[in-house]
Amino acid sequence: MPRTDDTPRFSDRLVEAIRAAGAPACVGLDPVVERLPGAVRADEPAAAVGAFCRGVLEAVVGVVPVVKFQSACFERLGGAGFDLLAELSARARELGLLTLLDAKRGDIGISAGHYAASAVRLNADAITVNAYLGPSTVEPYLKAGLGVFVLVRTSNEDSNAVQSLSLADDRTVAQMMADLAASLAEGRVGRHGYSDVGAVVAAGAPAGEDLRWRMPGQFFLVPGYGAQGGAVEDIRPLLDDDVGGVLVTASRSVIYAFDARSDDWAGQVRAAAEGFVGELAGLRG
Amino acid sequence: MPRTDDTPRFSDRLVEAIRAAGAPACVGLDPVVERLPGAVRADEPAAAVGAFCRGVLEAVVGVVPVVKFQSACFERLGGAGFDLLAELSARARELGLLTLLDAKRGDIGISAGHYAASAVRLNADAITVNAYLGPSTVEPYLKAGLGVFVLVRTSNEDSNAVQSLSLADDRTVAQMMADLAASLAEGRVGRHGYSDVGAVVAAGAPAGEDLRWRMPGQFFLVPGYGAQGGAVEDIRPLLDDDVGGVLVTASRSVIYAFDARSDDWAGQVRAAAEGFVGELAGLRG
Repeated sequence: MPRTDDTPRFSDRLVEAIRAAGAPACVGLDPVVERLPGAVRADEPAAAVGAFCRGVLEAVVGVVPVVKFQSACFERLGGAGFDLLAELSARARELGLLTLLDAKRGDIGISAGHYAASAVRLNADAITVNAYLGPSTVEPYLKAGLGVFVLVRTSNEDSNAVQSLSLADDRTVAQMMADLAASLAEGRVGRHGYSDVGAVVAAGAPAGEDLRWRMPGQFFLVPGYGAQGGAVEDIRPLLDDDVGGVLVTASRSVIYAFDARSDDWAGQVRAAAEGFVGELAGLRG
Repeated sequence: MPRTDDTPRFSDRLVEAIRAAGAPACVGLDPVVERLPGAVRADEPAAAVGAFCRGVLEAVVGVVPVVKFQSACFERLGGAGFDLLAELSARARELGLLTLLDAKRGDIGISAGHYAASAVRLNADAITVNAYLGPSTVEPYLKAGLGVFVLVRTSNEDSNAVQSLSLADDRTVAQMMADLAASLAEGRVGRHGYSDVGAVVAAGAPAGEDLRWRMPGQFFLVPGYGAQGGAVEDIRPLLDDDVGGVLVTASRSVIYAFDARSDDWAGQVRAAAEGFVGELAGLRG
């Protein structure tokens, strides 16, 4: 399913998908063999992970609008894992889900072009990108028709060692990265008012309201919820005045929410996804 | 070839390989189908890239001690490309070359652990890592026995938009990243006095001598030479007082140094590698 000239922009598809689902929720697939339910165990790790992820995709359809694939979990399975990622992402699209590739790539122009071509091949609608190497790191993905989420403020505590430092002009490193993302976002705005350039901003990020102020027309991909400890009140400062401008992601708290011996692990995953969506309803409140 | 407890540290293997070859030279493999010599064209892109890279590896053995694989070029070929990367890296080791995986990965702990497992599976001796997410981004690779090159100062001009900015304490962002790399380097030093944590510092980097001062016992992986415009005098400020502490990398200026219609493209690549090594002899001045 390559993107064509009349495919709507990523940001418009995202707004419409969130409205249709009624919740800005994304389920993250970061499968590891050790945590799979008994029912999908198989001799080949990639076969087991594939069966599990297909079950998760079918379980969350109609509940959440977007899924996110953690590239590292598939890469560690070698070429078979890499091809599986492409296949699962195609399956997700077939089911009507938008697909994010959480690959945190960051390389200079030519190599970024290769990564963008790879992301298209992997059936991604959008990708997470690390812009430490500058704006040319980001542009090739946009040229390839992908949405981008620039890493601004991540959810791990030791990110403070870099992202919380102050610049001479009083911005933090994270605020500087937000401004870089905002400058890349200009001129790439869809009819719903959002740019194809979003940002990763964790639940509970320091100065979250300031980051929203710096990136008013951008989607925030929000990790750090659920298993990582964040709650609805940690997301509220990141909201904008329109549909919300956030896409909250939960991974382990949803995909592993089953009793490993249960026959209905997929039903339990679906229930966890519904619970997640229900919690997010409190965001508007 | 998994690393075992009695495998020497990466930094010691690197020092010894450079001494044996007589030059701190690394050839970078970033193959694209469009630029391959006629003699290796094949119907399958991965087959053509594989034949070309095997030829390059055999051509540069005995000339340079280290090769670097640009992950993006292989990923864009899908799972077959990913498996080809593992196979070529195994072949490089078999030929006695050290292998760097230029993947610029950067994710938090658990996911970094998956990337590290993937790099081990890809037969890498060391990997390039982006530490914007903090020190926990780097540690899993070290735990897996890999050498690491932290991205400090890259060769693309627009990296100034991030790396040249000044912090409140007067360091640039690149100098801050150098200090982070130096703190990670502590306690991971081999018998030749170098740490397993190196840094990517481009030829001609601003304040190169200062970066060396901040990272005295660390190897610098130096891009930006050859096709990217750098010269020997751009590297000299990065040298230390011992063996040099640098590993200079050239990619396109070596691997594409052939006449596409020639039957002896591999001989021409070897000659280009010899020329590269000859130029580096000027480093010691």
